[in-house]
Amino acid sequence: MPKIIKKTRTGIGLPPGTLVYTGERKADKVKITEIVYDESEIQEKEVKDVEECFAPKDKPSVRWINIDGIHQLDIIEKVGKHFNLHPLVLEDIVNREQRPKMEDLGDYVFIVLKMFQFDEMEKRTKAEQISLVLTSDCVISFQESEGDVFDPIRTRLRENKGRIRKMGADYLVYSLIDAVVDNYFGILERLGETVEEIEDKVVVSPTPEVLQSIHSLKREMILLRKSVWPLREVINRLERWESPLIGNAIEIYFRDVYDHTIQVIDAIETFRDILSGMLDIYLSSISNRMNEVMKVLTIIATIFIPLTLVAGIYGMNFKFMPELEQPWGYPMAYLVMFAISLVMIVYFRRKKWI
Amino acid sequence: MPKIIKKTRTGIGLPPGTLVYTGERKADKVKITEIVYDESEIQEKEVKDVEECFAPKDKPSVRWINIDGIHQLDIIEKVGKHFNLHPLVLEDIVNREQRPKMEDLGDYVFIVLKMFQFDEMEKRTKAEQISLVLTSDCVISFQESEGDVFDPIRTRLRENKGRIRKMGADYLVYSLIDAVVDNYFGILERLGETVEEIEDKVVVSPTPEVLQSIHSLKREMILLRKSVWPLREVINRLERWESPLIGNAIEIYFRDVYDHTIQVIDAIETFRDILSGMLDIYLSSISNRMNEVMKVLTIIATIFIPLTLVAGIYGMNFKFMPELEQPWGYPMAYLVMFAISLVMIVYFRRKKWI
Amino acid sequence: MPKIIKKTRTGIGLPPGTLVYTGERKADKVKITEIVYDESEIQEKEVKDVEECFAPKDKPSVRWINIDGIHQLDIIEKVGKHFNLHPLVLEDIVNREQRPKMEDLGDYVFIVLKMFQFDEMEKRTKAEQISLVLTSDCVISFQESEGDVFDPIRTRLRENKGRIRKMGADYLVYSLIDAVVDNYFGILERLGETVEEIEDKVVVSPTPEVLQSIHSLKREMILLRKSVWPLREVINRLERWESPLIGNAIEIYFRDVYDHTIQVIDAIETFRDILSGMLDIYLSSISNRMNEVMKVLTIIATIFIPLTLVAGIYGMNFKFMPELEQPWGYPMAYLVMFAISLVMIVYFRRKKWI
Amino acid sequence: MPKIIKKTRTGIGLPPGTLVYTGERKADKVKITEIVYDESEIQEKEVKDVEECFAPKDKPSVRWINIDGIHQLDIIEKVGKHFNLHPLVLEDIVNREQRPKMEDLGDYVFIVLKMFQFDEMEKRTKAEQISLVLTSDCVISFQESEGDVFDPIRTRLRENKGRIRKMGADYLVYSLIDAVVDNYFGILERLGETVEEIEDKVVVSPTPEVLQSIHSLKREMILLRKSVWPLREVINRLERWESPLIGNAIEIYFRDVYDHTIQVIDAIETFRDILSGMLDIYLSSISNRMNEVMKVLTIIATIFIPLTLVAGIYGMNFKFMPELEQPWGYPMAYLVMFAISLVMIVYFRRKKWI
Amino acid sequence: MPKIIKKTRTGIGLPPGTLVYTGERKADKVKITEIVYDESEIQEKEVKDVEECFAPKDKPSVRWINIDGIHQLDIIEKVGKHFNLHPLVLEDIVNREQRPKMEDLGDYVFIVLKMFQFDEMEKRTKAEQISLVLTSDCVISFQESEGDVFDPIRTRLRENKGRIRKMGADYLVYSLIDAVVDNYFGILERLGETVEEIEDKVVVSPTPEVLQSIHSLKREMILLRKSVWPLREVINRLERWESPLIGNAIEIYFRDVYDHTIQVIDAIETFRDILSGMLDIYLSSISNRMNEVMKVLTIIATIFIPLTLVAGIYGMNFKFMPELEQPWGYPMAYLVMFAISLVMIVYFRRKKWI
Repeated sequence: MPKIIKKTRTGIGLPPGTLVYTGERKADKVKITEIVYDESEIQEKEVKDVEECFAPKDKPSVRWINIDGIHQLDIIEKVGKHFNLHPLVLEDIVNREQRPKMEDLGDYVFIVLKMFQFDEMEKRTKAEQISLVLTSDCVISFQESEGDVFDPIRTRLRENKGRIRKMGADYLVYSLIDAVVDNYFGILERLGETVEEIEDKVVVSPTPEVLQSIHSLKREMILLRKSVWPLREVINRLERWESPLIGNAIEIYFRDVYDHTIQVIDAIETFRDILSGMLDIYLSSISNRMNEVMKVLTIIATIFIPLTLVAGIYGMNFKFMPELEQPWGYPMAYLVMFAISLVMIVYFRRKKWI
Repeated sequence: MPKIIKKTRTGIGLPPGTLVYTGERKADKVKITEIVYDESEIQEKEVKDVEECFAPKDKPSVRWINIDGIHQLDIIEKVGKHFNLHPLVLEDIVNREQRPKMEDLGDYVFIVLKMFQFDEMEKRTKAEQISLVLTSDCVISFQESEGDVFDPIRTRLRENKGRIRKMGADYLVYSLIDAVVDNYFGILERLGETVEEIEDKVVVSPTPEVLQSIHSLKREMILLRKSVWPLREVINRLERWESPLIGNAIEIYFRDVYDHTIQVIDAIETFRDILSGMLDIYLSSISNRMNEVMKVLTIIATIFIPLTLVAGIYGMNFKFMPELEQPWGYPMAYLVMFAISLVMIVYFRRKKWI
Repeated sequence: MPKIIKKTRTGIGLPPGTLVYTGERKADKVKITEIVYDESEIQEKEVKDVEECFAPKDKPSVRWINIDGIHQLDIIEKVGKHFNLHPLVLEDIVNREQRPKMEDLGDYVFIVLKMFQFDEMEKRTKAEQISLVLTSDCVISFQESEGDVFDPIRTRLRENKGRIRKMGADYLVYSLIDAVVDNYFGILERLGETVEEIEDKVVVSPTPEVLQSIHSLKREMILLRKSVWPLREVINRLERWESPLIGNAIEIYFRDVYDHTIQVIDAIETFRDILSGMLDIYLSSISNRMNEVMKVLTIIATIFIPLTLVAGIYGMNFKFMPELEQPWGYPMAYLVMFAISLVMIVYFRRKKWI
Repeated sequence: MPKIIKKTRTGIGLPPGTLVYTGERKADKVKITEIVYDESEIQEKEVKDVEECFAPKDKPSVRWINIDGIHQLDIIEKVGKHFNLHPLVLEDIVNREQRPKMEDLGDYVFIVLKMFQFDEMEKRTKAEQISLVLTSDCVISFQESEGDVFDPIRTRLRENKGRIRKMGADYLVYSLIDAVVDNYFGILERLGETVEEIEDKVVVSPTPEVLQSIHSLKREMILLRKSVWPLREVINRLERWESPLIGNAIEIYFRDVYDHTIQVIDAIETFRDILSGMLDIYLSSISNRMNEVMKVLTIIATIFIPLTLVAGIYGMNFKFMPELEQPWGYPMAYLVMFAISLVMIVYFRRKKWI
Repeated sequence: MPKIIKKTRTGIGLPPGTLVYTGERKADKVKITEIVYDESEIQEKEVKDVEECFAPKDKPSVRWINIDGIHQLDIIEKVGKHFNLHPLVLEDIVNREQRPKMEDLGDYVFIVLKMFQFDEMEKRTKAEQISLVLTSDCVISFQESEGDVFDPIRTRLRENKGRIRKMGADYLVYSLIDAVVDNYFGILERLGETVEEIEDKVVVSPTPEVLQSIHSLKREMILLRKSVWPLREVINRLERWESPLIGNAIEIYFRDVYDHTIQVIDAIETFRDILSGMLDIYLSSISNRMNEVMKVLTIIATIFIPLTLVAGIYGMNFKFMPELEQPWGYPMAYLVMFAISLVMIVYFRRKKWI
């Protein structure tokens, strides 16, 4: 189960702006890639030292620096120093527990997002934090680990598809956010399938496992929701923001991705409603089953206890029991029993228990 | 059961503005009709190629192009090119998963609605997306398939009823939206009848099927609600919008359809409240039934178990049991049993169990 | 049970502004009364033809035209024509499913209200729609049928009580709204009494009928609420409205009736809270009863089953059972049984079940 | 149980501004006290006729007229006439069902509050309405009956403690409101103690009486809440109000009492949350008890029914039952029974039922 | 269990501005420390008399006076007099029941916070009130008792780490608030661990103790929430406040701590959701267990009661029962019993009860 909260600063009480990586320690090398492009040209390379990316450009091209891994603090510090980022921004980049947010710091805009990926191993959705820094001609993206949802953007850049090569850094930022939001649809589709599977099970066989599944789905929804609701606000602000860094032409694109976010929120809320409804069905299915068990018990007990009494009566040792002497006594006893059973069965039929 | 969410772009990661139809593939031909009218004249025709509709008009008449079928992307593209529609608008038109929305793009206003139809075959409500594009003298409506709620408008146009022929394209857009909202009342009436049917059943026979019906009605309400709440916002904005495309004279009509939307929302919320109440009744009906079953069991067991004991006692094989020798022993035993039963029955009467 | 929603236009798809009466067809004649008054004089008459009321007045008096019955559309149309009312306003007047609302149309203000009356026959609250049109010197009120809550106002007019004869048409409108809101208190008092009756029953005898009563009270509350919440907004707007038709001196009166509306809303919300609480009590009363039934069963079974075993043991036919031969065997068996019962009863006392 | 709503005007339909006392008829005489004070002097007297208080003052002192009893309408009318109060204000003063509110009528400010007192006799909280009228140099307070929470203020006035004698009429109004709000803390403390008592009982002995207590506490909370929520708004408006009657120096005091109101609201909401939680505990305690009862029944039945079968088998009268002839038959039967019991007990131990 | 509310003024009715300490009486001496620092120098001392801290400074340094203990009212009064604090502010400082709030009083800003500490002894979270007064060059902090979360700040001051020594008094206030908020993360982590422990138990062994734990966790959440929600508003106002006391350079820091507060609120709300979900699981686990108990009872009863009947029948004493005479009678009876058991077991298998 994912943790709900973690200490933001491992050493609580450190001065603000102190960089402390809050994820698990990793030995992985940080992978840094740089893509520089304009309408006519594109250069893509993996660099060893982030400082290679700080070289001045000879043309007004767009530079996208992608850093996979935020556990090597010296890299973050170098970037911070070169781009003159505020210490609190750097702190936020390495702190994995941020809420999606957007901050305009004059020379650059800082955006935090959550990217979700379904972990096939652990059968659950995992969140990864993505931080974006947008300057006038450069986008720097920070991810926790390799593997992301940006490959289609890289392909579009390489193959010069769509308008991405013609537009500036703001369009690149839009594209990255759009890719993240698009990815939510996939996650939600998968969750939707699970919801439907459980929905079938909950009526047929309301086992405790089904309850457990409903509970853990609910929990995934809570976590998703926590990431998507603030994202909506982020994108809304981006759409309306008056900043020289974000051109007016981009506004309609942000509105589009805003619409998508609302669709995601709608779907999450709908799933939450449906899951609540399923809990009600689960509880009443259990009640129904208990009812059925009780009915079987009652039918059996109610039919057989009187018969046992009849047998008990003729098992008494009184000297003077005339029936016992008669040849028709024994079959008569059976007849009485049969009659009692019949009456009972008719009674249960009337009550619609059988 | 309808899907809650679907991938908006079949190939997630395509550049924004790429047209991808998200419904099932259809072989149906797209049907395009054009109505051109002014106060004095009306021309109606079905065209094969959408480009036939782009012919310049010789008078200031209103043109309504209706396109039944959004799976043939080349048609959409031609329309987009002629009317200079933004690629994202075209993307929204062919993407069936839009939320109702309204966007003013300067030269034209783009509106997305959901039209509901009751599918007699599958016994459930089906949503269809309707996109409207309003320019200064033209309305283009896109539907997913043939069959809509606009026939009364066509009749009014043909027969020159009401003021529709005297008014401009904005009034036509209003009429289309009004027809869609009017149709909601029919859908809700039908759902209301189902609610009342279930309401009668839930007390009389709280079977699991009733629970299932409550659950699926709740789900239909969730889906309806998802379409109508944003529609309210859309119409509210249309009413207040300052655009040369929407005249001031239209405002009062949009206010009227806004009132209708609120009535629909009120009804949906009321149904939701009533359905929640029905679930409570269902659950307590089950409890009541279990109570009744338990009472029968308890009455039978409590009356017969003591009698069986009496019979058991006189079935013991002790040598010295004086009662056994007496002629009045056997009738006495019956008397004892009868007395016990009587006491029990009086006790249950007191408790009001019988 | 009242319908939640009805088709607003019997023929969905009619042009807006078409008058369609949505209630049951009635044969009743429409009753039209006219009261013309100023500070010194008052004239009251019942007219046959509504056009009699359109006669010009020779003094600046106030005219109140009251129309009981909205099913005769020609009358509505005549009024509409004379006072130059918008077709959509006329449509709203004859459509019984309006939400309370207020619209300023320049020359006149249009107000829709709901009046409630307790139907002694059907033992339930019935809503009736009241539409008011306020022009500079005239108020026209439309009701669905005869019988209203305005008699005190008529008396005040006739007897020149209070300030009503000294004030203008706006004060008359205020008085009518005030009478309607005042009437809500009576309805709520009656509902409050029913709530208290049920409250006593729910603990003493939680029968399914009580549940049914809670459910139908809840439903009445939902419907009342639907009428009163928008009314609050209507009166709030009337209080703040800048219109030559509504004088400033009236503001404090609207504030007063606004306060009353809030009191009504408070009461409705409180009743809803209390009804929810009663449902909880109902459910736990049922659980308590089931508990009691179970205890009786358990006590009886737990005491008698061991005794039956004892009897059974001494009813076995083994050759060598020394106890059977002894004279003290039989009383001994009774003693054993008595001891077992005693132990059980002490055990249940300890558990506080008896 | 307190009524939720009462007819505001006994004769619904009276003209607005008609004084109708809505409480029970009382024979008590109305008690009127007048305190006139400035920094140097204070005069306190009980007057017989309210008109004695209208005498002109020879110095710019503050006058506080306190009227205990609102059932003598002529007194209210005299006050109204002298201070030129609006008829609707007078109507509100004698109508006990007002919501807390504040109205600025130019020459004077009118405030309605609810004072709570715990009735030791009926063991429940009682609300009393307090109306305050603030003019430039006079405060008139109306109470329903004698006995209030203002004694500390009187003491402070007499003994010239704090700054009350140095300040104007607005400070006196603040002091009165502050005393009322302070009093809420006492009421809430008492309710808090009851909540804690019930909290202990609900787990130990979930009797229907506990449920009844939870329910009536919930109801008291609903009524308290109804009085305190609007009070918050009243005080907030007083703090921000721009009126020559309320000096700027008073603002910080109103902010202080506003903070106290928020504390009261916080406590009420917290109690409501806790009471809801207690209901859940109550319900599951009942379920737990039922579970325990069922277990006892099941254990007894499951152990003894098989033993009874064994006894029954050896009570059969077959001619050829070899065991019956054997001397070890009888002890063997006991052994079999003992073995069965043992197996059952081990099984229940495993299931942790014993 | 912590009290929800306490009388704010021990003697309700005291004049506003009267200092009354509302905690338990303490004999502890109040500890006063003073730290005076600028970029180059730092002086730290513990003073006996608070007046030692009022000495004029010869340089524009920042002074931080920390007062541990608010039960010695004369100290508070001296501070109030020297810094010219409003009597109501002093009253708030010594009253432990304040809500977090921020007030700008012109010459100084007054802030109230809640600091939480986990009491290892009583195993529950304890709140302590912290009041901060910010003047242009001085910060005074009041705590209820020794022991706080400010040690890291003291260390940073002493060792001149970060920018704290370079900044003014406003940055010191920010640092103190930041330390308090940072501390919430620790508290929430601990609560989160408890939540996860209970989450495991609730399915495996839903004992009443687990219910009790859920309930008390819920209660802790309610209390935490009560402190953190208003804190959010406080920090938001600090961020936006236009005051010469709070520099613009501080704004970004307050935004950072605001983000942290939102994270804390998010976590609290998530925990509340999860705890609600756990209650549902608890209730259905109990239902499941009851179901299982019922099944065991039903299986045993349903198998053995018919067998007992068979034994009872052959225990009857009829003269003419041919089976009894046959040598195969006895084994036959066993066979019949075995057959009945088999049928029953197969039936239960089918129903999936075994």
